[in-house]
Amino acid sequence: MTDRPEFIPSCPIPLSDYPHVLLAHGGGGKLMHQLIERMIVPAFANPALNARHDSAVLDVSGVRLAFTTDGYVVQPLFFPGGDIGTLAVNGTVNDLAMSGARPLYLSASCILEEGLPLDTFWRVLQSMRQAADAAGVAIVTGDTKVVDRGKGDGIFVTTAGVGIIEHPLTIAPGSVRAGDAVLLSGDIGRHGMAIMTVREGLAFESTIESDCAPLAGLVAALLRAGLQLHCLRDLTRGGLASALIEIAEVARLGIHLREAAIPVREDVQGACELLGFDPLYVANEGRFVCFLPAGEAERALDILHESPLAKDACLIGDVREKDAGLVTMQSRIGAGRIVDMLSGEQLPRIC
Amino acid sequence: MTDRPEFIPSCPIPLSDYPHVLLAHGGGGKLMHQLIERMIVPAFANPALNARHDSAVLDVSGVRLAFTTDGYVVQPLFFPGGDIGTLAVNGTVNDLAMSGARPLYLSASCILEEGLPLDTFWRVLQSMRQAADAAGVAIVTGDTKVVDRGKGDGIFVTTAGVGIIEHPLTIAPGSVRAGDAVLLSGDIGRHGMAIMTVREGLAFESTIESDCAPLAGLVAALLRAGLQLHCLRDLTRGGLASALIEIAEVARLGIHLREAAIPVREDVQGACELLGFDPLYVANEGRFVCFLPAGEAERALDILHESPLAKDACLIGDVREKDAGLVTMQSRIGAGRIVDMLSGEQLPRIC
Repeated sequence: MTDRPEFIPSCPIPLSDYPHVLLAHGGGGKLMHQLIERMIVPAFANPALNARHDSAVLDVSGVRLAFTTDGYVVQPLFFPGGDIGTLAVNGTVNDLAMSGARPLYLSASCILEEGLPLDTFWRVLQSMRQAADAAGVAIVTGDTKVVDRGKGDGIFVTTAGVGIIEHPLTIAPGSVRAGDAVLLSGDIGRHGMAIMTVREGLAFESTIESDCAPLAGLVAALLRAGLQLHCLRDLTRGGLASALIEIAEVARLGIHLREAAIPVREDVQGACELLGFDPLYVANEGRFVCFLPAGEAERALDILHESPLAKDACLIGDVREKDAGLVTMQSRIGAGRIVDMLSGEQLPRIC
Repeated sequence: MTDRPEFIPSCPIPLSDYPHVLLAHGGGGKLMHQLIERMIVPAFANPALNARHDSAVLDVSGVRLAFTTDGYVVQPLFFPGGDIGTLAVNGTVNDLAMSGARPLYLSASCILEEGLPLDTFWRVLQSMRQAADAAGVAIVTGDTKVVDRGKGDGIFVTTAGVGIIEHPLTIAPGSVRAGDAVLLSGDIGRHGMAIMTVREGLAFESTIESDCAPLAGLVAALLRAGLQLHCLRDLTRGGLASALIEIAEVARLGIHLREAAIPVREDVQGACELLGFDPLYVANEGRFVCFLPAGEAERALDILHESPLAKDACLIGDVREKDAGLVTMQSRIGAGRIVDMLSGEQLPRIC
């Protein structure tokens, strides 16, 4: 370690609270939010990053591009419904789609742990190729590094993606308006519970499979119909609740949900109860929310229902001036409550 | 682990040889070459990847983009002349520049190990910001994941980059021609030896500092002068030798070097001899080779010499039809030899 040069400002998170990285800093809850808002965004501050969306939207010679990245550290590497390779491709494809972009090209950077069976790496590469083909993108550039045994965990994959935005809309949290309908593309909690039941060695009557899937086709269908999409967001780390809280904060509007309208499969609900999770906070890899004018909600649902990936799409709430910056929910028995961001780590290494 | 589905072709590297990942698979030598050529390229095969260059060159709505990624796992995180943050930014900036692109935007994905001091992460973020500012690029999107203690190594950073190509040249190994001059932008071996002397706890009269630097400005100056650049390549993992061997193989031409023309600083040469390294194979992070018509070599050198980053740029060899696919070198005492790719791991986790 060299001495710290004079010109580096000191770390903006008070080091007396949590001087070290905790698993919860990656969990999609309050600590991760704090890490992003108080360290990462201030460090890199620029307009694209400040938009706080899944992809940066950039103008390059008059072409509107979306650009995004995600690292994948899921354990186990293979799980019901997918593996780290399918996740790494679909996750980045979906982040591009959530900006209303048509995903075009992906990069893939792999960090391998010494001792990983080459055959495992090969299976992951094959999964990535198949997922890329299914999503209509090409993996055009990559990198591989190897770290010593015990300094990694099998394989970590980081993908980045480039897409093109071919419409004039600004699909982002800042475009959400009071009166918007909030649509959800299907049942929630499957990805997280697929991972957790494998990890915990739980057996149910049927295996819970991850919902991991590319969402760009659904978004393209909504755009082709000329719908005025205000915001899209996939429901990964932190689940439905965290995604909506982030959008409510950026939009400075209230998002009101009806709990009874949010579909959760019975086996997922059972697994959540057994393991002490709330499905609202459990990660998905093939679900998204869509904000658009209430008058267009029905048409959007009709379009979504045409795809097997969104056959259970539904209206789960609306946007109001009231309770700005908050997500509120009317429970099944009629009581109202504020949906808060989780402070801890709900599900480590879920993606 | 789920059963292997029927449709996955079997791993194309004979598993009886090396059934597991070795450190050498990341070292820039023969095993890494084999991993790329026999597993990764076949898995993702597409024209951009097949070009085997530092960046993929893509046409998006008539705009020529360069797109690249690299993962960084260097140890120690901080070393004389830089740290993992400066490396991660300059490395990707340089990969874009080597395609003749003007680097524009970077993504940054960090994999943190539980227990990393937050202050260390903050210093790395600050380094990335400073390196980005110096190179004239913006870090516009990112991601952070956390892995359990003992499943990572402090911090891994993966950057991806997007740049724009604003000239009609195809700067790539396939454009190299017999008769081309081979220019080198300065002395070699500093980055690798800066890392190794720290790791080995060696003290020399003066500290060897990494040459880590952004090269896009040098490339822009060469392009502005209207020079017919055929190929550019930065000399990272595997050093000068590996870079030239790859180019000779793709171009199917012979590259002939004069050893006496290749500058190596005395302290670097000394450290190499002490530790048993050949500077030809040692990683650099601020050096590149340039192939262009011999008649333009002098003008290119004049331009390079104007920058402190390339004040020692020199002509080190030429391209011939003879010895196609090989790199040959005339030694200081006049003997000729073939420069071969190293089979093992020379310097693990150098970048």
